Amino acid sequence: MIKAGIIGSTGYAGGELARLLLQRDDVEIKWYGSKSYVDQKYASIYQNMFEIVSDSCMDDNIEALAEKVDVIFTATPQGFLASALNDRILSNAKVIDLSADFRIQDVNIYEEWYQIQHKSPQYIKEAVYGLPEINREKIKNARLIANPGCYPTCSELSIYPLVKEGLIDPDTIIIDAKSGTSGAGRGAKLDNLYCEVNENIKAYGVGVHRHTPEIEEQLSYGAGKPVTISFTPHLVPMNRGILITAYASLTSKVSYEEVKSVYDKYYGKEFFVRVLEKDVTPQTKWVEGSNFVDVNFKIDPRTNRIVMMGAMDNLVKGAAGQAVQNMNLLFGLEENKGLKLIPMFP
Amino acid sequence: MIKAGIIGSTGYAGGELARLLLQRDDVEIKWYGSKSYVDQKYASIYQNMFEIVSDSCMDDNIEALAEKVDVIFTATPQGFLASALNDRILSNAKVIDLSADFRIQDVNIYEEWYQIQHKSPQYIKEAVYGLPEINREKIKNARLIANPGCYPTCSELSIYPLVKEGLIDPDTIIIDAKSGTSGAGRGAKLDNLYCEVNENIKAYGVGVHRHTPEIEEQLSYGAGKPVTISFTPHLVPMNRGILITAYASLTSKVSYEEVKSVYDKYYGKEFFVRVLEKDVTPQTKWVEGSNFVDVNFKIDPRTNRIVMMGAMDNLVKGAAGQAVQNMNLLFGLEENKGLKLIPMFP
Amino acid sequence: MIKAGIIGSTGYAGGELARLLLQRDDVEIKWYGSKSYVDQKYASIYQNMFEIVSDSCMDDNIEALAEKVDVIFTATPQGFLASALNDRILSNAKVIDLSADFRIQDVNIYEEWYQIQHKSPQYIKEAVYGLPEINREKIKNARLIANPGCYPTCSELSIYPLVKEGLIDPDTIIIDAKSGTSGAGRGAKLDNLYCEVNENIKAYGVGVHRHTPEIEEQLSYGAGKPVTISFTPHLVPMNRGILITAYASLTSKVSYEEVKSVYDKYYGKEFFVRVLEKDVTPQTKWVEGSNFVDVNFKIDPRTNRIVMMGAMDNLVKGAAGQAVQNMNLLFGLEENKGLKLIPMFP
Amino acid sequence: MIKAGIIGSTGYAGGELARLLLQRDDVEIKWYGSKSYVDQKYASIYQNMFEIVSDSCMDDNIEALAEKVDVIFTATPQGFLASALNDRILSNAKVIDLSADFRIQDVNIYEEWYQIQHKSPQYIKEAVYGLPEINREKIKNARLIANPGCYPTCSELSIYPLVKEGLIDPDTIIIDAKSGTSGAGRGAKLDNLYCEVNENIKAYGVGVHRHTPEIEEQLSYGAGKPVTISFTPHLVPMNRGILITAYASLTSKVSYEEVKSVYDKYYGKEFFVRVLEKDVTPQTKWVEGSNFVDVNFKIDPRTNRIVMMGAMDNLVKGAAGQAVQNMNLLFGLEENKGLKLIPMFP
Repeated sequence: MIKAGIIGSTGYAGGELARLLLQRDDVEIKWYGSKSYVDQKYASIYQNMFEIVSDSCMDDNIEALAEKVDVIFTATPQGFLASALNDRILSNAKVIDLSADFRIQDVNIYEEWYQIQHKSPQYIKEAVYGLPEINREKIKNARLIANPGCYPTCSELSIYPLVKEGLIDPDTIIIDAKSGTSGAGRGAKLDNLYCEVNENIKAYGVGVHRHTPEIEEQLSYGAGKPVTISFTPHLVPMNRGILITAYASLTSKVSYEEVKSVYDKYYGKEFFVRVLEKDVTPQTKWVEGSNFVDVNFKIDPRTNRIVMMGAMDNLVKGAAGQAVQNMNLLFGLEENKGLKLIPMFP
Repeated sequence: MIKAGIIGSTGYAGGELARLLLQRDDVEIKWYGSKSYVDQKYASIYQNMFEIVSDSCMDDNIEALAEKVDVIFTATPQGFLASALNDRILSNAKVIDLSADFRIQDVNIYEEWYQIQHKSPQYIKEAVYGLPEINREKIKNARLIANPGCYPTCSELSIYPLVKEGLIDPDTIIIDAKSGTSGAGRGAKLDNLYCEVNENIKAYGVGVHRHTPEIEEQLSYGAGKPVTISFTPHLVPMNRGILITAYASLTSKVSYEEVKSVYDKYYGKEFFVRVLEKDVTPQTKWVEGSNFVDVNFKIDPRTNRIVMMGAMDNLVKGAAGQAVQNMNLLFGLEENKGLKLIPMFP
Repeated sequence: MIKAGIIGSTGYAGGELARLLLQRDDVEIKWYGSKSYVDQKYASIYQNMFEIVSDSCMDDNIEALAEKVDVIFTATPQGFLASALNDRILSNAKVIDLSADFRIQDVNIYEEWYQIQHKSPQYIKEAVYGLPEINREKIKNARLIANPGCYPTCSELSIYPLVKEGLIDPDTIIIDAKSGTSGAGRGAKLDNLYCEVNENIKAYGVGVHRHTPEIEEQLSYGAGKPVTISFTPHLVPMNRGILITAYASLTSKVSYEEVKSVYDKYYGKEFFVRVLEKDVTPQTKWVEGSNFVDVNFKIDPRTNRIVMMGAMDNLVKGAAGQAVQNMNLLFGLEENKGLKLIPMFP
Repeated sequence: MIKAGIIGSTGYAGGELARLLLQRDDVEIKWYGSKSYVDQKYASIYQNMFEIVSDSCMDDNIEALAEKVDVIFTATPQGFLASALNDRILSNAKVIDLSADFRIQDVNIYEEWYQIQHKSPQYIKEAVYGLPEINREKIKNARLIANPGCYPTCSELSIYPLVKEGLIDPDTIIIDAKSGTSGAGRGAKLDNLYCEVNENIKAYGVGVHRHTPEIEEQLSYGAGKPVTISFTPHLVPMNRGILITAYASLTSKVSYEEVKSVYDKYYGKEFFVRVLEKDVTPQTKWVEGSNFVDVNFKIDPRTNRIVMMGAMDNLVKGAAGQAVQNMNLLFGLEENKGLKLIPMFP
């Protein structure tokens, strides 16, 4: 039995983690950590958990938690883990961080984009970027996992193979991303009120969104050189789902079959990445509630560009599901254990 | 391994059945029956099933199907099963009918409300109304299950205990019901277009909805005499979920605790019915994707009435989930096997 | 040119008032009052007003405002106007109050349901309940208008004629109401976040909603005796719209035509109340953005009850539109001036 | 009094045209043309028109219509007008075509992208592309107006000034567009059902959408040379609204102020184009129900690209509103007559 603790269990990603872990019989949640709801019944915060969880919320004392569990998930604001992490914690428990604190190797870039001082730069190098489809082997032996961001997960899985294989010019990559509103968190902000989001779509953070350097770093590893991208996220009136539509110039004339074979090479054996059939465009609804990423592409001979598309549930493969996938790897379990969820439709 | 076949597998209820059964390792779907999509890949109709189901759709030949499987689910239009049923089918396989064909014992009432001639009245008496919380023992030994309607399931579970215990006057029952749009089916009708449903709410079938006699019959068993109700369904702009708000006059002055104890008596040991805590009103979102029905009530001393509320996922407990619950009972399995689904939030 | 001021102009009802008044050439808004946004550009709060309104928000000093304008709209929390009102204000300007402060004649009932002490009971008697279809003549000569609540407007217009004509038993009235989310206001509350409201429906304030005594008082005038009702509001995932479904027992056997003729008697000449054709149920989408209330009914001979239905835009006829209708009456203008808005579909 | 006729009045664009024209006192609709609903009450098709329109639907005989009216709006499928147009019609009435039949000057391109033979190529040259902000003077004297497509209107207004002034490299233009579902029309198709669109986003027509050549032609006029673009539309779960996010490489280093001054040069005096303030991104909700297009941009010095954004109501400025704007110009009226609609929020 794996004993797990969640710091930040009352946010949307934390709640999804609880949902995924509670459906397993080999994991036990020992700690529902929270900043705002200490001592309140967890099931009163998430009424869907009524008669399922009887625990009350604990605080966010990660040191105390580390002595009680095998794995800690931190679904916390940026800076929390970097401020709290130490060797004792890491020697007691595996840490899977859903925040951005350890995703970016260059601390200066982190501090510039996140406008925050990094309090534990000494752990950055050790942290493993938890995208199993690319970093599987490194993840297995890590102590500290930097669970990827939602937009980066979908973007990287859609684009990486073509960058790595040299089919596209990395200097031309433009990512237009669309996200459901759960990505904005459960904070009571005017901008996220029902009446402000419903029947509306807008871009936000244009040119300055903090997931940009994370995507750039990962694509750089594929390109073998620094990559600079355009990244524009949009807020869409739906609860869950991320769709990315990415554009790049092809480095040479390629056929549908050639590109398809590249995707198949990378993902043919991947359980969670589905390369759709020709001309079927990814839809967020087709992956809702599951850990799948659906990808596809379209070559446009008129412009010599390729359009790469990916759809994913931002709370599952974009957060909690991927964290569980990483946990499975860390503990030597089957990677898709507890994650063979079929998307819910409609 | 239970071998199962679904007739009407390409409707929303049929698709949900497939989703629930595919997540089990003790059931195998041998037949994805369809009227409109024969020979087409099932995963091309429900793209969420891509790489999960490789089968193509079969036709709706229930006789042929009955020879291949242990259990048949018919998620078909009214009249289909009544036209096709025979002894051979019933001797080959258990039949769980998600249509209304065998829900109503009085064939005249069926024919009047459904405006259709019943072609197999000889099987009505044998059919067991598949609401396990009330008919559990009868279900276990049945050959033919009449899986309850979505509105009836939620209405009956919310109201039945108070009728049975004589706390409310059955002649005063008014049910105001609200349903998500998946209840209207997957047919391409103008009224169900996104732009017609979105940002809109309306009543429909006022006083003439076909679920009325079904609810009346079941409540009559509780009351020990014929019950006539007012029932008004509404279409709500959401995919899933039914909420019922029911009103009745109390037969005597009762306290919160007295009523609560009645609900607890009926549902204290029921896995799928959750009696919420005082003043917590049921919300459809808190049960989405699960087989739970959340119920609660409020006594109004000013009017001497009680308001009974129930929330449920219309495609799960209101259709496919309840059908699986019945299958579990028919095959001697744990009743909640494959159904310990935690509601998805948000 | 009528000079108008709005206190509470940055709430949803205040914003709608601005929208309606700005489309007229005989009214000038001189004061965009606000509590939270003083000195900020109004068009930065409501970006739809960009290049339309150049004013900044003023404070909520109603005395200063009264010296500058002919009419004051208060779209403020309960208690604000009662705390601030005085003779000087009333002698300087007409006051149309969109809060509940002067809607209820019995101050004890107000204080009990609103849990607030009434600071100006001396003005209650003078205040005229601003439902023009019922109180038209009194409104014309008033100084202080109590603009009706959203649920009460829709409920009263749907039910009043049948109570007044004695067709229904007032002791049996049950109102099941459904509202879009703008009715909950623009405050940043967790319960009103997009992800909490979307794909969800719930009842709230069961048996204790503050609009209950307002409806009861108005129906009592029709019945000629005190009326006690059951009233249950629900929150629906849409921005605008209220639908009420009301139930009552008929006092005698009546035909469709008899009831229809009663509605026609009351509303045949009313511009804003549309009695729909037989079997057409009111839909909120069909009145969105307009000042119309669509009403209809269905007799249920099985139960001897009648179902009364009404649909309305809660921000227009349920708030700002009705306030403008009252303003028109107060200033001797055509009652529908600036309000001949055709519902927006889809 | 201008006498107007609408062919295709029962589609969403036709219904919006009716809504806009009915709110004027200088226009009279003499003909509600329809293919599917001949002789049915128009208000039974669009219940929002109840008690507003008493006419029944006429057929789509444009020749007969032309003898009765001053202006004909054709909101019809591609090919209808091209098949029916003749000199008699054009000498009797102005024709404003909301279909694509006369938008593209090169008939071969039309036939290739629309997969339809053009039956009246002789009128293509005469037709004036009805984008008043660019073609105002030509429109005034035209007989036949090709009302622009929804995506093209929003795309061209957002991009044209920068192409024309040489600030961006036209070979690098990528347009990522998002549309509400009313753009898909009122046909009863499975893909447009509520449950299929809700909680979902997808790209469609990637690389092959028929609005592509229309945008290219118009931008080519600005560039002074042929322009080829990437264009990807997406379907968004909302009724109304188009948002375009366009990307291009800057031809030289420019400041915010320089680009702003270009937009101001083109749109400073335009009533319907609002250039938003710095860092305010266009939102579809802020223009809903109005004829405005909100545009803005963001320079990204890291990539030397610019992001151009535009938001618009697809049924107003993207269809019916623009058609009315063109009608105003054709008849020598104030261009914004009947169109000073304030966006509805929320």
